[in-house]
Amino acid sequence: MSMNSFGHLFRVTTWGESHGPALGATIDGCPPEVPLTEEMLQVWLDKRRPGQNRNTTQRQEADQVRILSGVFEGKTTGTPIQLMIENTDQRSKDYGEIAETFRPGHADITYHLKYGNRDYRGGGRSSARETAARVAAGGVARAAIEAMAPGLEIKGYMTRMGEMEIDRAALDLGEIDNNPFWIPQDATTAQAWEDYLTKIRKDKNSVGAEIEVIARGVPAGIGAPVYAKLDTDLAAAMMSINAVKGVEIGEGMAAAELKGTDNADEIFMGNDGRPVYSSNHAGGILGGIATGQDLVVRFAVKPTSSILSPRASIRKDGSATEVVTKGRHDPCVGIRAVPVGEAMMACVILDHMLLHRGQVGENRSSIG
Amino acid sequence: MSMNSFGHLFRVTTWGESHGPALGATIDGCPPEVPLTEEMLQVWLDKRRPGQNRNTTQRQEADQVRILSGVFEGKTTGTPIQLMIENTDQRSKDYGEIAETFRPGHADITYHLKYGNRDYRGGGRSSARETAARVAAGGVARAAIEAMAPGLEIKGYMTRMGEMEIDRAALDLGEIDNNPFWIPQDATTAQAWEDYLTKIRKDKNSVGAEIEVIARGVPAGIGAPVYAKLDTDLAAAMMSINAVKGVEIGEGMAAAELKGTDNADEIFMGNDGRPVYSSNHAGGILGGIATGQDLVVRFAVKPTSSILSPRASIRKDGSATEVVTKGRHDPCVGIRAVPVGEAMMACVILDHMLLHRGQVGENRSSIG
Amino acid sequence: MSMNSFGHLFRVTTWGESHGPALGATIDGCPPEVPLTEEMLQVWLDKRRPGQNRNTTQRQEADQVRILSGVFEGKTTGTPIQLMIENTDQRSKDYGEIAETFRPGHADITYHLKYGNRDYRGGGRSSARETAARVAAGGVARAAIEAMAPGLEIKGYMTRMGEMEIDRAALDLGEIDNNPFWIPQDATTAQAWEDYLTKIRKDKNSVGAEIEVIARGVPAGIGAPVYAKLDTDLAAAMMSINAVKGVEIGEGMAAAELKGTDNADEIFMGNDGRPVYSSNHAGGILGGIATGQDLVVRFAVKPTSSILSPRASIRKDGSATEVVTKGRHDPCVGIRAVPVGEAMMACVILDHMLLHRGQVGENRSSIG
Amino acid sequence: MSMNSFGHLFRVTTWGESHGPALGATIDGCPPEVPLTEEMLQVWLDKRRPGQNRNTTQRQEADQVRILSGVFEGKTTGTPIQLMIENTDQRSKDYGEIAETFRPGHADITYHLKYGNRDYRGGGRSSARETAARVAAGGVARAAIEAMAPGLEIKGYMTRMGEMEIDRAALDLGEIDNNPFWIPQDATTAQAWEDYLTKIRKDKNSVGAEIEVIARGVPAGIGAPVYAKLDTDLAAAMMSINAVKGVEIGEGMAAAELKGTDNADEIFMGNDGRPVYSSNHAGGILGGIATGQDLVVRFAVKPTSSILSPRASIRKDGSATEVVTKGRHDPCVGIRAVPVGEAMMACVILDHMLLHRGQVGENRSSIG
Repeated sequence: MSMNSFGHLFRVTTWGESHGPALGATIDGCPPEVPLTEEMLQVWLDKRRPGQNRNTTQRQEADQVRILSGVFEGKTTGTPIQLMIENTDQRSKDYGEIAETFRPGHADITYHLKYGNRDYRGGGRSSARETAARVAAGGVARAAIEAMAPGLEIKGYMTRMGEMEIDRAALDLGEIDNNPFWIPQDATTAQAWEDYLTKIRKDKNSVGAEIEVIARGVPAGIGAPVYAKLDTDLAAAMMSINAVKGVEIGEGMAAAELKGTDNADEIFMGNDGRPVYSSNHAGGILGGIATGQDLVVRFAVKPTSSILSPRASIRKDGSATEVVTKGRHDPCVGIRAVPVGEAMMACVILDHMLLHRGQVGENRSSIG
Repeated sequence: MSMNSFGHLFRVTTWGESHGPALGATIDGCPPEVPLTEEMLQVWLDKRRPGQNRNTTQRQEADQVRILSGVFEGKTTGTPIQLMIENTDQRSKDYGEIAETFRPGHADITYHLKYGNRDYRGGGRSSARETAARVAAGGVARAAIEAMAPGLEIKGYMTRMGEMEIDRAALDLGEIDNNPFWIPQDATTAQAWEDYLTKIRKDKNSVGAEIEVIARGVPAGIGAPVYAKLDTDLAAAMMSINAVKGVEIGEGMAAAELKGTDNADEIFMGNDGRPVYSSNHAGGILGGIATGQDLVVRFAVKPTSSILSPRASIRKDGSATEVVTKGRHDPCVGIRAVPVGEAMMACVILDHMLLHRGQVGENRSSIG
Repeated sequence: MSMNSFGHLFRVTTWGESHGPALGATIDGCPPEVPLTEEMLQVWLDKRRPGQNRNTTQRQEADQVRILSGVFEGKTTGTPIQLMIENTDQRSKDYGEIAETFRPGHADITYHLKYGNRDYRGGGRSSARETAARVAAGGVARAAIEAMAPGLEIKGYMTRMGEMEIDRAALDLGEIDNNPFWIPQDATTAQAWEDYLTKIRKDKNSVGAEIEVIARGVPAGIGAPVYAKLDTDLAAAMMSINAVKGVEIGEGMAAAELKGTDNADEIFMGNDGRPVYSSNHAGGILGGIATGQDLVVRFAVKPTSSILSPRASIRKDGSATEVVTKGRHDPCVGIRAVPVGEAMMACVILDHMLLHRGQVGENRSSIG
Repeated sequence: MSMNSFGHLFRVTTWGESHGPALGATIDGCPPEVPLTEEMLQVWLDKRRPGQNRNTTQRQEADQVRILSGVFEGKTTGTPIQLMIENTDQRSKDYGEIAETFRPGHADITYHLKYGNRDYRGGGRSSARETAARVAAGGVARAAIEAMAPGLEIKGYMTRMGEMEIDRAALDLGEIDNNPFWIPQDATTAQAWEDYLTKIRKDKNSVGAEIEVIARGVPAGIGAPVYAKLDTDLAAAMMSINAVKGVEIGEGMAAAELKGTDNADEIFMGNDGRPVYSSNHAGGILGGIATGQDLVVRFAVKPTSSILSPRASIRKDGSATEVVTKGRHDPCVGIRAVPVGEAMMACVILDHMLLHRGQVGENRSSIG
């Protein structure tokens, strides 16, 4: 019933504040005998790490992850895995001035209203730094998935940033790692996005983003019919990421505009004895259970609320003030949400693979 | 860790199939001394009940709810509340023919792939009838909320049905109960929606819908910062409803198109010593915690997959077939999702009120 | 986080009061395709049923269990199983007089102090009738265990009743069903127990009991190292039964008197390639995980607090009074705790079999 | 559903192995604004710390606890509290030789059977070192209890060690901290226990122990009626401690020998308007809910299985061998279980105080 945990059998609890000594993830329920090293996790953390280009906060963090427990002789033991990332670059002075003020659009005021206090250094628990722990946990999930379902692939990419939207006709997943936005588009498009974001930043502004995460090779049958639906858990996982305001599965909100004849994916028998579908409006999920098609999840990230443009607000004493958030902030925090979304997808998929194995066992039923 | 439960302290487990003897909800954690009668719950069930007009399935169900436990002398005792709704109109013959076939866009195939069997009568557990149990549970939540936070108001309405969309400039919540679509619009608009849906039905088709649910008077401070964020639980609650494919909080997916200057709701001090905001892009939630503004949640319901138009599919033996779903189905199942969305909102709000009281107590901190 | 549920993957929530319309169990997480009928469950309920001889309450209850969901064509579907037992013999008048009074040793006063109200009819939720729902749920667990681990056997029996204690040298499990106390002793001993209890009853008194439950053929490896230890869950399961005040695994409390040389069960290699042990002081569990030896659990049930002898107490208004509990009560409620203990053992074992399969899979590691 | 967590609202997850870099506890759900420092926690850790006298392992561990998150400016923030204790004295060589062998009475063999691997260094996760994390977590619980219910007192002490048993007629809680066994007896008795244990150690043997933990000033009404009974959670908490084989509440196993007339604690009205009782056979709990009397819990700890006397066993390859466990071990591990039992009691009480406040609120009902 923890407020800072997610997952049923593969259970992740993140802890830590932006400017405390460290943050991390406590992972319970990981299968034993899974090959795991700090290097394997670092790959994903480096992808999320800030300070890599001028479109992400200039805060310099090594984001070195340490495995403190649960791994012995290079393999998971089945006991809790503790992942710790120490905070090295903590220039608190940047933030001191906002200790008394609530930043509009930020969690400052709600933390104060709930707890009567808050760690105001860099947003404390509400900082995007919390997502580093998710990415590390996602790395563990990926390792376990690789051991259980080799070939299962998870890929995330941006599909929109403010006025910029990808051209799905020109979608090329091979390009994702070739540009700082992780967009599946060519270099010319990437440059256009770069120019757009540069202008946003120079205007002392920020912008929102839409991220899509897909999973290929997901075993048909994982998921559950009602409250632990695969789409329910995916929606919760994505919505739990800072600044996310919307989540879609398959057609998503557009399903409201469709007719039944358009929406229902027709079913045919594949040559390999597995069903194939005429389309994937469902995003790989029917009745909360995976069909075996690609899982398709999208989510929207609001623009960073910490901006250099002045906004009206109040202080803890109720007096009016104007806030200009200095410090180091992402003009588009959505960029770094891509590896976070991938990590959440990995955790949810592994969790449901374990849940399915627990209730139903390893032999899945088939058709024909 | 149940697959068929939701909620942390106010915990609801629904059970039952469309054509079994009964279905219902087991509720654990309800506060004691809450006035509760079957009549109070029936009000909400009657709102959801099918067969009321030709836009919903003609199946006739009394949907009479019985309280089997947890209430004594008209008040909750604090022990589990069992709500049972017997299935009276079960014409199984309508469904017999699909025992061997998988309806495209329906959970038939995934249930088969997961469990190796399924109750094919009326969709069994995947039937929209499961939502009757949610509505009953929501009625209990509303009663407890009324006792704890009098005046807290929850209201749901349709905002889109296929090509029809409401005109927010003409939004009138007072009209919601005056038309069969629960749209906050005048009679003329309602008639246009009626004509539109009639044509859909005559075309042997179905259509999707978008529903918005708002809550007024929500205590500021309820919610949690990370995985049990108020928006996370609302997203999970709505996505867990049959046929829902997308969930939005406040700006929702549109947040991806916004700039920071547009999105951040400015804060001012109200005359009553409570903060007021220049706008509500956040939908009443910052950092997972309620600001005290209106909670605003939207979700999209896909068109009913059970339609009279033929669709290609396969049988359990893998052979190809064509499916035409006879039986009694809603041309727009989204209509009945309105009271369901309200019920889920009520359950989530009560749950978080109890969670907040548990961790922080009854005296909430204030500003100034 | 429900207060009325137990189990991790195989999750049972009981509901209902002694004199409400019905009580039952909501079961989530049962594996699919398990053969299950009401008759299979009735066998266990009949064993627990009161009114069978003059040593148990003369209340006449049919205790007929109905399966309302989760079973289709004689097999579990994997969705929630709702078990309902209607209360038929409710003579509330017997209890009306204690509405204002707290019976010493009974939950009356604590329910009042916690909830501010209570269903005083027959003890409401605190009645031993709640255990009927456990026995029904245990029947479902037994059916699933039979499907997963044929031959696994669970057996409970009384080992002590007040001054009467079994002679372990003459232990004969074959005799258990031949006497009303379920003691593994011959008819002569059973008669002595009968005479002893008759005297207790005639003295308007009641007496406590100790029950032992063993399980044979438990798969080695089920359980977990720390908080979800197999012994932790067994202790919780037994202690959750009404009136239980102590739980022991293997040597139990006597372990405090042992030396290391006496306690450690020596290990040898069996002919079947499985380890064998020189003894079973551990009760089949080491480090929270099953060794494959017999699971051995004991628990003590306090004497019924509802007795015909007068006891000093107070009323809701604080005034002093004397209580003589009329109505129909067991002189030794521990007798009926035998099938309840078996049921809890079955639920815990199944739950851990599913948990183990979820985290580790179906192929268990071996020695040599 | 974590296997390494306990608690409902105040949720503790421990992690770490005996000879890994560190171990600790992740705490979720602690109330905000609770004064907390590392020094406050160190007090309890020092009490449990080994190497203090020749009756506990000579392993030298500083057991310095660090608070890595959840505390800001000397107060809890309401977010997760991460407690880390680094392992400093890890002489792994002492343990290398048992990598291939299973120690009788130890978790070696079951870890191997469950996971197919194990961290054999010092028992890895099954080491008594895991309890250091519990003691640290208990310190946090004590701080929160002090803030919510000042004056609530928790006290643990040994009541038996092998053949030595305390004289309850001479019980003196004031003596507990004056002797290395935490027995509530005078110096002469303590010396006798000392001599007894010295002989056990010189005989290359070990011995079991019985510990009693009481809590005074527990608010009446905390707890729950059925599966989350206060006694259920206490039993689970104590049984989850390494080497514990039995748990008792109040009369415990002796309740089996009692008659109803002896067992039921009579109730009278106290001068302060609170009920008082003629006795406390119930151990402060009726129907799973606290009466307001002293909570009384006892548990038995088996003798350390790691002894210097040779015992027959097998190796991973199945071959026979004889085990003599060198290394540094407690002749009576039960001694250090005293502060651990106190810590578990504190965690359970706080958890139930929060649960009660969540469901029922802060105003408790009264009598008269």
